[in-house]
Amino acid sequence: MTDMLAPGATIGILGGGQLGRMLAVAASRLGLKTHVFEPGANPPAGQVADRLTMAGYDDAEALRTFAEAVDVVTYEFENIPTSALDVIEAIRPIRPGREALRVSQDRLSEKDYLSELGLTTAPYADITDLASLEAALAAFGTPAILKTRRFGYDGKGQVRITDAAQAGDALGELQGAPAVLEGFVDFSAEISIIGARGLDGAVACFDPGENIHREGILRETTVPAAIPASLRTDAVLLAAKILGALDYVGVMGVELFVTPKGLVVNEIAPRVHNSGHWTQNGCAVDQFEQHIRAVAGWPLGDGQRHSNVVMENLIGDDMDRVPELAKRSGAALHLYGKAETRAGRKMGHVNLVTPLS
Amino acid sequence: MTDMLAPGATIGILGGGQLGRMLAVAASRLGLKTHVFEPGANPPAGQVADRLTMAGYDDAEALRTFAEAVDVVTYEFENIPTSALDVIEAIRPIRPGREALRVSQDRLSEKDYLSELGLTTAPYADITDLASLEAALAAFGTPAILKTRRFGYDGKGQVRITDAAQAGDALGELQGAPAVLEGFVDFSAEISIIGARGLDGAVACFDPGENIHREGILRETTVPAAIPASLRTDAVLLAAKILGALDYVGVMGVELFVTPKGLVVNEIAPRVHNSGHWTQNGCAVDQFEQHIRAVAGWPLGDGQRHSNVVMENLIGDDMDRVPELAKRSGAALHLYGKAETRAGRKMGHVNLVTPLS
Repeated sequence: MTDMLAPGATIGILGGGQLGRMLAVAASRLGLKTHVFEPGANPPAGQVADRLTMAGYDDAEALRTFAEAVDVVTYEFENIPTSALDVIEAIRPIRPGREALRVSQDRLSEKDYLSELGLTTAPYADITDLASLEAALAAFGTPAILKTRRFGYDGKGQVRITDAAQAGDALGELQGAPAVLEGFVDFSAEISIIGARGLDGAVACFDPGENIHREGILRETTVPAAIPASLRTDAVLLAAKILGALDYVGVMGVELFVTPKGLVVNEIAPRVHNSGHWTQNGCAVDQFEQHIRAVAGWPLGDGQRHSNVVMENLIGDDMDRVPELAKRSGAALHLYGKAETRAGRKMGHVNLVTPLS
Repeated sequence: MTDMLAPGATIGILGGGQLGRMLAVAASRLGLKTHVFEPGANPPAGQVADRLTMAGYDDAEALRTFAEAVDVVTYEFENIPTSALDVIEAIRPIRPGREALRVSQDRLSEKDYLSELGLTTAPYADITDLASLEAALAAFGTPAILKTRRFGYDGKGQVRITDAAQAGDALGELQGAPAVLEGFVDFSAEISIIGARGLDGAVACFDPGENIHREGILRETTVPAAIPASLRTDAVLLAAKILGALDYVGVMGVELFVTPKGLVVNEIAPRVHNSGHWTQNGCAVDQFEQHIRAVAGWPLGDGQRHSNVVMENLIGDDMDRVPELAKRSGAALHLYGKAETRAGRKMGHVNLVTPLS
């Protein structure tokens, strides 16, 4: 492992939210320092990182200084402006690489890419105007979901269409943003698999978890997922295929629908993923450390699961439950240090741990 | 729990070594900030704490400013000068409290205190001069160990006496420091128990671990310890007795000898303890979080053990083993971010995790 960063080296992290925070903590376990770059004030990751640069992604000078101060750059979210990536990449490696970002920043590119790999996605169509939307609705039927191609997260930038007559209103809601229409998928469960690929090409996946979303936001992940062993294998093979095709380095979250015809890929995220938070209390090496290991050129760690876990997100007023959760047996709390509690804001999560069954 | 510090509050930590570092990380999991006070340069805890004050324990102004910036003060080592504690205590609570520090800062006070509680220690005597040493050697026989009353750690400040004729030389080695002589204890194993007591008086103990020391430094801790269940209960009761007597708040490490006549208390440490590092990968809530919970007035967490663990310290050149350990299955690495590797210096540890047997 000649490319293994030595303890004492510094990982640059773009984005100072909770994912950046937990990445910084994981890096500290390996004796690695972190330097967080974040435009917003009071970033949660700033409280635990060795250094913090507060500057915008359009501040080329700040980006250059940041890149020069670190050994490798990674990120906690995929919507980093291309111009910022260009500045950084001239100075330090970015892991996962540009191709993963290009593919995942745009729902259309992502679905095209996955389809070309031979994977099944929801039926989808590029929507450029009312005519293309009406044609797609005619082809897929309703319900269907119109989604912006870029910058959507946690259910934002999405409109559910239950009747073809709503096409115009739906387009209006997206205010002219480039969009895709996704046809209905009749799934029995939503699962996700967190895969990792090292700089040496080794691949390791955590056990798939079963997810419950409400209002487009992940609420709960349960491991083990209640799926047959054959689907677990399918999920691992599918994740490995995507990771290999992208020559990926780091952790990726892959959201899947379980259908009578097998697994359908919902979306991929080129980063640690909310549905992988259970690994913090279910495995010796969690998704955050696995990601840091990969981007630092370390061998991947042991992601074997030692416990069953139900991960519950704490959103907005769920913070009122903290005193009760702090007392609960088997409960491991993870709070994000956000200064302000707001409705719909992810404030923390709790991993409810029970012995392997 | 009216005294429960809210997320966003700040824990002050005296001492910026690896214990302070891992305390800071644990605090971050609960959404609490940390502010480390440390006289030395480049403290490992500074890399992960929200704030760092580098100043001496004789700098009353720095201590005052530090105390005013935090909500409660704890510490990673027991040898904090009394004058510094006086400055802080006038401004913020110190947890664990002064009595625990007074007792544990001095081996003689510690042994007197434990004996008065009805616990068994090694035979010991206050050594003030050659005559008192010779009398004690005559009473206890050899081998015996002469130890400074204060400031000893990791085998420092100790001389083993195998023949009464060495008395003068042994005293000379300690250069006139106040000392105690400890008689020989014929033990079959060294174990330790990590206990915690909350602000509400609740007590929780982790499973006892079995320790191997070499050259006075802890090398390895194994859980479960190979001891009968009755001794486990004894260890818990004994720890609870000490915690209660001291009206203690926080985590305490208690080192014990297993002898044919039962448990003998070797020493207590009013802080998180090296022999409790296995809890990081053996329990949902580890000793560091347990300590933070206690000093922050939170309920104690669930320290139930979910795995078997062997903790190995990485000392000095053991750092050369990191690339190999990083690959090993079931191995969870914890490196301390120390700038320089030196012989005998604790650089990290590895928890080797296997399923409960």
